[in-house]
Amino acid sequence: MGFEQAWLVYAKREVSAQWAGVHTICTEQRGRITEHAAAELRTAFSQITGEELILCSRLPETEETGCILLKLADGRREGGYHLYEEKGNLRIEASDEAGLLYGAFELIKQLQLGSAFDGMDICKDPVMPLRMLNHWDNMDGSIERGYSGESFFFDHNEILVDERTVTYARLLASVGINGAVINNVNVKDAATWLITDRYFEKLRQLSAVFGDYGIRLFLSLNYAAPIELGELTSADPLSEEVREWWKRRMKLVFEQVPNLGGFLIKADSEGRPGPFTYGRTHADGANMIAEAVKPYGGLIIWRCFVYNCMQDWRDYQTDRARSGYDNFTGLDGLFHDNVILQIKNGPMDFQVREPVHPLFGGLKASNQILEVQIAQEYTGQQRHVCYLIPMFKEVLAFCTYAAGADDTVEEIVSGRTFRQTKCGMAAVANTGNDENWTGHDLAAANLYGFGRLAFEPSASAEELAREWIIRTFGGDKEVLEVLLFILMNSWKAYEMYNAPLGIGWMVNPNYHYGPNVDGYEYDRWGTYHRADHMGIGVDRSRNGTGYAGLYREPNASMYDNLESCPDELLLFFHHVPYTHRLKSGKTVIQHIYDTHFEGVELVDEMVERFEGLEGRLPEKAYRRMLERFRHQKEHAREWRDQINTYFYRKSGIADEKGRKIY
Amino acid sequence: MGFEQAWLVYAKREVSAQWAGVHTICTEQRGRITEHAAAELRTAFSQITGEELILCSRLPETEETGCILLKLADGRREGGYHLYEEKGNLRIEASDEAGLLYGAFELIKQLQLGSAFDGMDICKDPVMPLRMLNHWDNMDGSIERGYSGESFFFDHNEILVDERTVTYARLLASVGINGAVINNVNVKDAATWLITDRYFEKLRQLSAVFGDYGIRLFLSLNYAAPIELGELTSADPLSEEVREWWKRRMKLVFEQVPNLGGFLIKADSEGRPGPFTYGRTHADGANMIAEAVKPYGGLIIWRCFVYNCMQDWRDYQTDRARSGYDNFTGLDGLFHDNVILQIKNGPMDFQVREPVHPLFGGLKASNQILEVQIAQEYTGQQRHVCYLIPMFKEVLAFCTYAAGADDTVEEIVSGRTFRQTKCGMAAVANTGNDENWTGHDLAAANLYGFGRLAFEPSASAEELAREWIIRTFGGDKEVLEVLLFILMNSWKAYEMYNAPLGIGWMVNPNYHYGPNVDGYEYDRWGTYHRADHMGIGVDRSRNGTGYAGLYREPNASMYDNLESCPDELLLFFHHVPYTHRLKSGKTVIQHIYDTHFEGVELVDEMVERFEGLEGRLPEKAYRRMLERFRHQKEHAREWRDQINTYFYRKSGIADEKGRKIY
Repeated sequence: MGFEQAWLVYAKREVSAQWAGVHTICTEQRGRITEHAAAELRTAFSQITGEELILCSRLPETEETGCILLKLADGRREGGYHLYEEKGNLRIEASDEAGLLYGAFELIKQLQLGSAFDGMDICKDPVMPLRMLNHWDNMDGSIERGYSGESFFFDHNEILVDERTVTYARLLASVGINGAVINNVNVKDAATWLITDRYFEKLRQLSAVFGDYGIRLFLSLNYAAPIELGELTSADPLSEEVREWWKRRMKLVFEQVPNLGGFLIKADSEGRPGPFTYGRTHADGANMIAEAVKPYGGLIIWRCFVYNCMQDWRDYQTDRARSGYDNFTGLDGLFHDNVILQIKNGPMDFQVREPVHPLFGGLKASNQILEVQIAQEYTGQQRHVCYLIPMFKEVLAFCTYAAGADDTVEEIVSGRTFRQTKCGMAAVANTGNDENWTGHDLAAANLYGFGRLAFEPSASAEELAREWIIRTFGGDKEVLEVLLFILMNSWKAYEMYNAPLGIGWMVNPNYHYGPNVDGYEYDRWGTYHRADHMGIGVDRSRNGTGYAGLYREPNASMYDNLESCPDELLLFFHHVPYTHRLKSGKTVIQHIYDTHFEGVELVDEMVERFEGLEGRLPEKAYRRMLERFRHQKEHAREWRDQINTYFYRKSGIADEKGRKIY
Repeated sequence: MGFEQAWLVYAKREVSAQWAGVHTICTEQRGRITEHAAAELRTAFSQITGEELILCSRLPETEETGCILLKLADGRREGGYHLYEEKGNLRIEASDEAGLLYGAFELIKQLQLGSAFDGMDICKDPVMPLRMLNHWDNMDGSIERGYSGESFFFDHNEILVDERTVTYARLLASVGINGAVINNVNVKDAATWLITDRYFEKLRQLSAVFGDYGIRLFLSLNYAAPIELGELTSADPLSEEVREWWKRRMKLVFEQVPNLGGFLIKADSEGRPGPFTYGRTHADGANMIAEAVKPYGGLIIWRCFVYNCMQDWRDYQTDRARSGYDNFTGLDGLFHDNVILQIKNGPMDFQVREPVHPLFGGLKASNQILEVQIAQEYTGQQRHVCYLIPMFKEVLAFCTYAAGADDTVEEIVSGRTFRQTKCGMAAVANTGNDENWTGHDLAAANLYGFGRLAFEPSASAEELAREWIIRTFGGDKEVLEVLLFILMNSWKAYEMYNAPLGIGWMVNPNYHYGPNVDGYEYDRWGTYHRADHMGIGVDRSRNGTGYAGLYREPNASMYDNLESCPDELLLFFHHVPYTHRLKSGKTVIQHIYDTHFEGVELVDEMVERFEGLEGRLPEKAYRRMLERFRHQKEHAREWRDQINTYFYRKSGIADEKGRKIY
C-alpha cells in the first residue's frame, strides 16, 4: 500500500534571499545519524528552495555564508541542540548525534514555517528523557484498537522492513520521539516468539533503521514466555530456574539485536499472565526481568494497568479506579533502577475526561512514564476529529503535591521532582498502513503533537497545532484559521456530546464506538454510572469507595467535597440528583441537555467551515476528511439523541428550552 | 467427531412374551426405503429383545405368530400407516414406502415405550404435508445461530457425506421429517456455487442417503446467483435473459441431483439481494424461479421475513411488526402453485413470546409454511433448557378467523382451510457436530417434538416430552418425572426471567444471549420497548402503529383494546404506566419483579431436582447437563437482577415484598 509523507511533505515556496542562498552542509561528523540529518536537510532544501546542498567535511571559509554547520559540542542534554545564525551561516550544535538530527529537523521546520533566517537562535533540550510510541500491532497484521488500516510492522507473522519503515522513523525523529514498542502489549501467539532466533534477523534490520534516526526499538514481552516457549513449567519470579532462564534468554536477545531498548510488559491484567499466579508481587516480577536485561543497559517498562476485570456490577464497594493505586503504592521503592512504571493518564481507561491517575504523586521512589492514547479508542476512533493535546496539557499541568507545592505530572515524568533519568511519556500509537498513516488526516496532529509535547511540554496546544497545519498543508491563512478552529474545539465538542461530567463509558461494549448509555452498566468491567430515576454518578468520596482520598491534600479534599469538586469531574466523584446545581448555575440534567445540543452545533460549525476549504486543500485529503466530517456530523446527533433521550426518559425532567428529545 | 444415537439408542429391556417372540419380517416390497424400514426393525429388536429378525418375502404361514408384515395398501395419505396386531403378528400397512418406514419407527417406539403387543392398533396419517428442517449451516463449517458445535454437512467448503449423515437421516425419519434444507438462508461465498457442477457429485450422494429415509433434499438459493456466478449482469425477474438462465440452470441441477425437493429463498432481507433491486415484487421473483423448477416437480419456498433493518429508533411510526404483512398480503393469489410462503410464527423474530404472525389468516390464496426455530437463538442458546413445543402448540391453536370460526394456524398449514397440499411446518435446526447433536441434551426434545408435532399436531407437548424421555433415557420413573417437570416448566421459567409481557428483545445485540434491556433500544432493527420513567410498551393499537388492526376480527379488537388484550402480550400491543393493573390484579411493575424472582426460584427447583438424578442417567450426559444447569442457575440471576434493577432505577417504584434489587 502506498503512503504519503505527512508533515514531511515539502512544497516549493518563496523564501528570503538568505534561505535561498544556503548551499552547503559542513560537518566533520561521520556517524550514521549525522549522515541522515544531512540527508534530511538536503531533501528539504532541494524541494523547498530548489537548492541541492553540497555536503562536505570542511568548515565554512572566512566571510563565506550560506552554510549549515553540524557540530558536536558539550553542554547540552542528550538530544538537545542549539540552532543559531552566525554571520550568514546556520550552526547546529549538540552533545550527541541525535541532537544534531533534531536540530536539523528544527531547521527544516523553521524553513517550512517561513521563519526569519537572520538572528535565528533556538536552544532546546528534550524535557522528557523517554518519548515513546506504543504500537498495539499484532503479528497477523491486525492492530488492536487500530483505526488506520493494518500494521506496517507485521504481516502473516513476519516482520516488515521496507521504505515505509524508513519514513516512519523519519516522522518520529522529526518530532523527537526516541523509542518505539512495535508489538501489542497483549503478547500472544507468534509474538511470544519475537525473542527467539525465528525473528532476530529482521529485528536487527529494523533496529538498524530505527538507530539511524536515534530511535530505540522496544518489544512487548510475554511474562509467561518460559512456559509458552515450551522450556519451563513455571514463570515464578522467585524460582532460580526461571531467573536463570531469563538471563540466558536476554543475553541471547541483546547480543543478536543491538540497540534494543528493552521491553514493555502488561502482566496480571485483562487475562494476561503475571506474578500474581505465583503469589508474588509485581516488584518480584519486574525485578526478575530487569536483572536479566541490566548488563545490556536494557529497560523494563511495567504497566500499572492492573485491575479486576471480573467485577460484579451489583458490588458498589469495589472500585476499579482504585486498583492501580492499591496494587502499586505499597511497592514504591522496591523496583530496580532499570524498571519504569508506566501509568495511564487516568485511573480508568483513556476516557474523554478522567481525573489524573493518583499514582502520580502516590509514588515517590519509582521511575514513571505517563501513558496516553492517541489511538482514539474512546474518542471517536479517528472518524471523529479529536485533537488530544489540550487534554494532555491538562494532565501534565496537574499538581500532585508529592514534593512541595509545584510538582506537576510534567515535573515528575520529566525527572525533575525525584531527580530521575528513566522517565517520560508514551503514547499508544494511532498509525497504520493507511495511505495517510492515521485514517483521519487531522489525527496526524495527535502524533505530531505528542512527540513535540514530550520534547517540549511548555509548547502550547495551539502552537503545536499551528506548526502541524502549516507543515502539512502549507501557509494558506484560511486553511490555518479553519483547521486551527476545528482542532482546538474538537476535544471540547466531543466531550460535550459524549458521556457527561466525567462519568465516561457510555459506549458500545467491545467496539467502544458510538453511544450506549447502559453498555457497560451491567457488565464485569468495573465501569458504572449508577443512574436511576433520581440521579447519577459514582460516589467515590469518603462516604463511597474512598477513591478521592488517594490523592494528596489539597486534591483529596477538593474532590471529596461536593462543593469544591470541579464540574467536569462531578459524576466521577459523586452521585447527585439530576436537579443538583453545578457551579455553572445549571442543573445536572439541564447541563446534559445543553451540552449535547450545543456540542452538535459546534460540530456543525466545524463541518461548515471545513467545507469552505474546498479547493484550498489537496483534493484527496479534502475528500477523505469531508467523508469523515459528514459521518461525525450525523454520528454526533446519534450521541446527542441517545444520551438526551435516555436521561429524559429516566428522569422525566423536560428540557427547559423545549428542544426535541425522543 | 464421534456422535451418539439420541433417542435411537436401544437398551436391552424386559419385554412380554409376544414381543420376545417376534422373529421374522415379511415383506414383498424391495424398495430402498422398505429395506431401511426392515433394517431399522432388525437393529431395534436385536438390541432391545435380543432377537435377530429374519427377513423374508413370504407371507406368514397359517397359525404362525411373531411376524412383522410390511405391506403396501391403498387408502392412506402419503406417509400414513396402519400398525396393528392380528393373530399374534404385527402388520404395517401404508400407501407408500415412506408410510412403511414411519410405521416401522412407530413400532420401535411402542417397543421402547413398553406398550402392549396384543390389540395394538395405531393408525396415523401425517397432518402436515411438508415437515422440514432448515439448517443455517455455512460451507466453511460454521453455523449461524448454531449452539451445538460445527456443521456436519459442510467443512472447508466441501460437502460431507458419512456415517453421521445416515444417522441424521434415521433420526429425522423416525419422527416423520420429510425435507431438509442443508445450507444457510444467507447464501454467500461457496454456497452460491452449490448449483454448479462443483458440488453435484456430493449432492447426489447426500440426496441418495436422504432418499433412503423418505427425506427430500432442499437447498437455500442465492437470488443473485446469475450475477454472482459471473454469467449475467442482472437478476431482474422480468428479464427474458434472466428467466432463461434460471431455466437452463435448473434443468442442469435437477438432472444432476435426483430427488431434489427445491429451494428455500431469503430475498430482500437483512442485506440479501432480491427483486426489490429491480423494482419488482416478490411474486415476480418467486414465480420466475418457480417456473424454472416446475418441470421437475420442484418447490420454491419463499421467506416472508422482509423488513427494513435500517430503521431509525426515533421513528415511532414505522413498525417492523407490520412489515411481513404489508409486503405480502397484496401479493396473495399471485404466486405460482409451486411457490410456498414461509412465515415465522411471530411478526418479529423468534422471541420468547410474540403474537402469531398476522399473515396467517391474512393470506387466503397462497401456500404457507409455518417457520419455527428450535435453534434457541433467543431462548437460551441451548445453555438454558427451553422446551418449545408448548409454544408451538399455542401458535398452531391460534384461530385466525380467515374462513369461518374454527380455522387455526394448524388447519391452514395442514392444508385443510384452503385445500392445499403444499404446506406444512419448518424448524430452524438446533443440531451440530456435538457428540449429543444438540449441545444441551434436553434440547434434543425440541428436535424430536418438532417432527412429531408436524406429523401429529394433536399430540400434547407433555406426551411428546414423555415419549422422548423414555426413548432417550429409558423407563426409570424418577427420571421421567423429573425431566418432565423440567421440560414442561422450562419455557415458562425462561419467559418469567426474560423480557416481560411480550415486549421482547432485551438481549445483547448480535449475540442474542444474556440480558441487555437497552441493547436494541437505540438501534436500527425496529426493536424497541420505549420504556421511560412512567411506563413501557409499544403502542400498536389504532392510536399507534395500527398493527393490531392487521388481524381479522375479533382478534383485531381483542389486541387493540387494552382491557381485552391478554396480559402476556400487553406490552407488545400497548404502552402502559408501570402502575397499570393486569388481569392478574398485579401492577405491571410488580409483575416484573414477581416473575423475575419466581422465575429464578423455578430454575432453582429444576436444578435441585435434576441433581437428584445423579446415578440414574448416563454419567456423561448427566455431567454435560449439570454443567449447563449450573450456568443457567447463575445466568437466570443475571437476568433477574438486570431487569429488576433497570426497572426499579427507572420507575423509582419499590418492590412490594422488599426483595433485593440493586
